[in-house]
Amino acid sequence: MQVIRQRIAGRSLASGEKLPSIRHLADRLRVSKSTVVEAYDRLVAEGIIQPRRGSGFYVTTQLPPLSLAEIGPKLDRAVDPFWVSRQSLEADESFLKPGCGWLPPDWMPEESLRRGLRTLARSNSAILTDYGSPLGLPALRSLLARRMDAVGIDASPDQILLTESGTQAIDLLCRFLLEPSDCVLLDDPCYFNFHALLRAHRVKVVSVPYTRNGPDLDLFEQALKNHTPRLYITNSALHNPTGASLSLPVAHRLLKLAEQHDLRIIEDDIFADFEQAPSPRLAALDGLERVVHIGSFSKTLSAAVRCGFIAARPEWIENLIDLKIATTFGNGHFSAELVLNILQNGSYRKHMEELRKRLSQAMKQTSDRLGNLGIIPWIEPGAGLFLWCSLPEGQDAADIARKTLAQNIILAPGNVFSQSGNANRFLRFNVAQSLSPRLFEVLVTALAR
Amino acid sequence: MQVIRQRIAGRSLASGEKLPSIRHLADRLRVSKSTVVEAYDRLVAEGIIQPRRGSGFYVTTQLPPLSLAEIGPKLDRAVDPFWVSRQSLEADESFLKPGCGWLPPDWMPEESLRRGLRTLARSNSAILTDYGSPLGLPALRSLLARRMDAVGIDASPDQILLTESGTQAIDLLCRFLLEPSDCVLLDDPCYFNFHALLRAHRVKVVSVPYTRNGPDLDLFEQALKNHTPRLYITNSALHNPTGASLSLPVAHRLLKLAEQHDLRIIEDDIFADFEQAPSPRLAALDGLERVVHIGSFSKTLSAAVRCGFIAARPEWIENLIDLKIATTFGNGHFSAELVLNILQNGSYRKHMEELRKRLSQAMKQTSDRLGNLGIIPWIEPGAGLFLWCSLPEGQDAADIARKTLAQNIILAPGNVFSQSGNANRFLRFNVAQSLSPRLFEVLVTALAR
Repeated sequence: MQVIRQRIAGRSLASGEKLPSIRHLADRLRVSKSTVVEAYDRLVAEGIIQPRRGSGFYVTTQLPPLSLAEIGPKLDRAVDPFWVSRQSLEADESFLKPGCGWLPPDWMPEESLRRGLRTLARSNSAILTDYGSPLGLPALRSLLARRMDAVGIDASPDQILLTESGTQAIDLLCRFLLEPSDCVLLDDPCYFNFHALLRAHRVKVVSVPYTRNGPDLDLFEQALKNHTPRLYITNSALHNPTGASLSLPVAHRLLKLAEQHDLRIIEDDIFADFEQAPSPRLAALDGLERVVHIGSFSKTLSAAVRCGFIAARPEWIENLIDLKIATTFGNGHFSAELVLNILQNGSYRKHMEELRKRLSQAMKQTSDRLGNLGIIPWIEPGAGLFLWCSLPEGQDAADIARKTLAQNIILAPGNVFSQSGNANRFLRFNVAQSLSPRLFEVLVTALAR
Repeated sequence: MQVIRQRIAGRSLASGEKLPSIRHLADRLRVSKSTVVEAYDRLVAEGIIQPRRGSGFYVTTQLPPLSLAEIGPKLDRAVDPFWVSRQSLEADESFLKPGCGWLPPDWMPEESLRRGLRTLARSNSAILTDYGSPLGLPALRSLLARRMDAVGIDASPDQILLTESGTQAIDLLCRFLLEPSDCVLLDDPCYFNFHALLRAHRVKVVSVPYTRNGPDLDLFEQALKNHTPRLYITNSALHNPTGASLSLPVAHRLLKLAEQHDLRIIEDDIFADFEQAPSPRLAALDGLERVVHIGSFSKTLSAAVRCGFIAARPEWIENLIDLKIATTFGNGHFSAELVLNILQNGSYRKHMEELRKRLSQAMKQTSDRLGNLGIIPWIEPGAGLFLWCSLPEGQDAADIARKTLAQNIILAPGNVFSQSGNANRFLRFNVAQSLSPRLFEVLVTALAR
């Protein structure tokens, strides 16, 4: 398995290429044929290779078999689920980052954070030094319960578990809900890190096209029938990268299908507070039966303050606590205290009002400027950070991204979000990171070459 | 698989008990016999059940097949790897916690933390709001490299990856180094959360008795031969729970065996700063070839400040970065800034000197008081928090722990640390949490009944 994985990672076996015959590989590795058969079977189960009747085994084309090990120099590295995150996280301030998924520092509530830290510096010694309770700060969980209630999600504080981040919340849930070689349903396109995370869980991924109102339900149902996925991960409101939101009828039909096929759902709602008006939440309709709701404050408050949360069925919470202790032990309750402090004193609400206004202006301006270059938004999102845009005919987003990277501009090419690879003409723009005129100058040149 | 797991977790199938026959279960669940065969095969691979020739399948006795789902009311809950952590983390201040693994708040450098937080409140907006670089704060990594150099470990700052905790460091490494159904070697006894964590990774665990100088090397070699483990996780200095430390000859022989059998090693060194004089480190002898060194500041600075680190081969670090992004994305760089601040200003060194003195006194006092009750330390550790003690003949540590729990005292019974279950007469005492006379009064009564 290791040998084949390495060859695929190192591109000596490309997507769609035929694997060595069982006899040939057994000879080369000096192992029995049945060992190779077993290894190939397991790789099939992992979705990395697939058999074709009478013709041997082939590297699967649906799931690009990217190894976690595959890292290269920046300009050469594959446009994979890690492309945007690695480039964006590693870039210094000399870079423009219209492809990244967070707001610039000067859009964040700096003064509230400073005040919150000073308050934390005055708290008692248990808060300063202890692990905190496994569920996490009770007062923050009560506050989160009230916030959820406001969008129709009925969760008691004991159904809420604090985590270190939204990503860690999803990771814990995957550990709890999935077995290796299970199948998981994603949107196409979707947040690229879902692919990276699920790969770490060794599960199979199937994607369904995302429409302006949610996933394409006919294809969704077909995927349920063909692949019996255990789990679906999605953003209901302000979907990443498209900015679309789930409509009520689609939400309703989707949940009926989920029930018929015993599908569980993680509703990743980290962009909730950017909404101008709340869209339907699966967790609200479903009553946290099969839907788990997660969120965080990384996008609205500070990415340095690590605090996410999970709202789920009470009996699942108990399991998740054990998993959280086993895998991280502690609680990051500094962050929880800080978030609580800022949420309680009202400055967060004012900050978000300001932020929504500023983002709406930036969205209009970016949309216009991109339009002038023939880069056209797929929809006009109701709110949020992102514009999902198509390039003029004949252009390839990965090419453009590589060209602009050489000019210290990090873009988010469509196919890092797309399992099908159908998004090669799309780019995701973060409107708050797209205000520099230099971006559009460089884009003009990149499009011209 | 789910059905069998649930029965085992719910104790309707006990350790060593025979599983239903394949035909019987296939009938009951209305699935084909081959489905049951496959499920049993996978459970065998996971080490949860084992076949006996001609006699069917049995719940394995070596790895107590505890489900992560098994939670009960406090007094009833099984004495399992989560026992101490759940009880200790959930207990309020009315409890005495001689069984817990951390220092009381008033042993921690409260003033340094307050000062550190005030300094953080004055830092620039990128520090306050951004994700930080994937490797983690460069200045802290440089400082950690210098600290490691002082104990003979040669690691460049680029070989050091910051994590959110020591536990998360080990979790990331397990994700990188292990496949499901791999075998991992642990000490018996060892830190109970290693068992909890490895269960989440679905690997098989084999334990080797720990002696006063390190693992029993004859049994260690035998385990390597019989089980071909991929990984060994240990504490070289101030081993948890025994307080023993690895001797130089044992370290040398152990590394030779590791090389012969291609074994990787995680050296969990979170108690390093408690040592009065440094003991040999596997990472120093090995030069970070096959040994990975991890640490954190949860035990010495604050459990609320989440900051751990990994020192490993450069090419492994690249993979670990991707895994870290995939599973947690961010960096907890607030904590890193805080740790750097406190480590740099010299107050940490003074705090640790004070702490070592105080612990040494507490150890003497606790050892004497326990001795009066016939509770005898296995060794007199050179330093650290823990005394690993045996109860008088005929006493059972789990019984005693349940009795004292009813009196609001949380003990750490030996078998939560022991896969073999041979430590039923042992308790681990945290000497800093054992200063209240009430502990000894309650122990007298518990021992008498």
